[in-house]
Amino acid sequence: MKGKMKGKMRNESRPENTPKAPNASVAPNGSETARIGIVTVSDRASRGEYEDRGGPAIYDWLEKHVSTPWAAERRVVPDERAQLEDCLRELADESECCLVVTTGGTGPAPRDITPEATEAVCERAMPGFGELMRSVSLQVVPTAILSRQTAGTRGRCLIVNLPGNPSAIADCLGAVFPSIPYCIELMGGPYIDTYPTLIHAFRPKHAKRSAHA
Amino acid sequence: MKGKMKGKMRNESRPENTPKAPNASVAPNGSETARIGIVTVSDRASRGEYEDRGGPAIYDWLEKHVSTPWAAERRVVPDERAQLEDCLRELADESECCLVVTTGGTGPAPRDITPEATEAVCERAMPGFGELMRSVSLQVVPTAILSRQTAGTRGRCLIVNLPGNPSAIADCLGAVFPSIPYCIELMGGPYIDTYPTLIHAFRPKHAKRSAHA
Amino acid sequence: MKGKMKGKMRNESRPENTPKAPNASVAPNGSETARIGIVTVSDRASRGEYEDRGGPAIYDWLEKHVSTPWAAERRVVPDERAQLEDCLRELADESECCLVVTTGGTGPAPRDITPEATEAVCERAMPGFGELMRSVSLQVVPTAILSRQTAGTRGRCLIVNLPGNPSAIADCLGAVFPSIPYCIELMGGPYIDTYPTLIHAFRPKHAKRSAHA
Repeated sequence: MKGKMKGKMRNESRPENTPKAPNASVAPNGSETARIGIVTVSDRASRGEYEDRGGPAIYDWLEKHVSTPWAAERRVVPDERAQLEDCLRELADESECCLVVTTGGTGPAPRDITPEATEAVCERAMPGFGELMRSVSLQVVPTAILSRQTAGTRGRCLIVNLPGNPSAIADCLGAVFPSIPYCIELMGGPYIDTYPTLIHAFRPKHAKRSAHA
Repeated sequence: MKGKMKGKMRNESRPENTPKAPNASVAPNGSETARIGIVTVSDRASRGEYEDRGGPAIYDWLEKHVSTPWAAERRVVPDERAQLEDCLRELADESECCLVVTTGGTGPAPRDITPEATEAVCERAMPGFGELMRSVSLQVVPTAILSRQTAGTRGRCLIVNLPGNPSAIADCLGAVFPSIPYCIELMGGPYIDTYPTLIHAFRPKHAKRSAHA
Repeated sequence: MKGKMKGKMRNESRPENTPKAPNASVAPNGSETARIGIVTVSDRASRGEYEDRGGPAIYDWLEKHVSTPWAAERRVVPDERAQLEDCLRELADESECCLVVTTGGTGPAPRDITPEATEAVCERAMPGFGELMRSVSLQVVPTAILSRQTAGTRGRCLIVNLPGNPSAIADCLGAVFPSIPYCIELMGGPYIDTYPTLIHAFRPKHAKRSAHA
């Protein structure tokens, strides 16, 4: 299953309707470059019937807030559980992403399967992410409780479900990203930092570095 | 198992100690009538040793707040996991309820099995419901964290666990019901609305209707 | 597996670097004595390379706050899922603890397996404990969402994961302990009370006792 899927997903990556990453900010592949998977889960976006807005919103947010070298791995997959599971496994295991964020497919509609696929590929659940994201979204809209967003770890990769809506994406990343660099560090991944005037990547004193590689 | 249970549960429905629904507000079975299951989970109530207060409290709350046509399917079952699972399956699959609310059996006492039965029959979990209900109840009583209330979807049916205590039922319905009509709509169910002076059924603009069927 | 493990764990109990309980406050084994398991989960503490600070912090907190007779069962185990599961089963089933609290192993580091071991031995989850502890810790540190703390019941035993950090232990016990005595009572366990000037053990009026055994 995996072999068959992979080729297809690679073709789907970086679709033409998403802006190309400016080279200046995406570092060349190096030991300290954090590889971050950005997965849009949408039937319509995967068929090209709908412009993917969630993936670019995540990319732009990371571009603006992350100060250390990172590189994006973009994917667009339909709301098919097997395909999404395979995509998440490939990003964690072969592309060696330390972080994978998804957008879309977390609601109660019959096709929404993102949380189930995430749980299926993760060894360990991180319930605090979903709790905090729903709590933050609840201050904006009462239907935030309908979001089934979850997070978990697969090997050294943290997988986090974000909403589909770009403004909700920013709210959720703003809430959970302060914890992500230290989480990745605890998992043995690369050192990630943020622009402190925009967002503070929290870590205990002993884990701070004065200069970055 | 299911065949045997069904007859029994039908006999248990609408027990004599609960008020009969006034015909004026319960619409005849029609295409847009929302069928709502109300399940009391209680050993004593199912044996008639104890007046069911949770089921009528839910019925009265819905009667007061829901403005669109709906019909209740009432059940009273003992704290037996297999019987409750069968009851939930029957309400979702055969009675075609778009919503089933339970009352009772969510605490830590040895006989409390409502969350386990709910999870067993649901394909997908809706963790935001339990989180919000516990958070709201925590403002009333510190032991709210002992409630193991959960929610999930089975096919096109949303199943939500409510507490056993009638005043806690009102607190919890007041917190989660604003999200339920849009949730049911996303699942392909009937259009449900509420009396806006009492409670606001939230939905995005594109999903609003100016007049109801 | 269990037989082999048990001997080892008994040897590990009450390590020399933890203070001995003063006899004055630990009641002799009696019908109403609450047996409370305190489990430190740490590779380094179990090898004696690191002083166990979490276990003594829990012991001291209980010593200060619990007014009814109780006795501690101390264990120190490495971050090995099978060993921790066996330790939790032994404390619940053989030592007949009504409460077991763990410290350590709830983060995202590769060796952290405390929540998985807890879920594996529990029949029922108590999600409200983790939600409240993360919510309380979030007011202190944004990385509180990285804690995967959970709780559940095994037979008549409540198992609760606490953080590793002693100051976070006090925050979490202060938040959840008010609910624990009534929880244990609902599970058929001993009557536990607290010094009301320090912390209020909440229970409904009908469950209160004017004098303790």
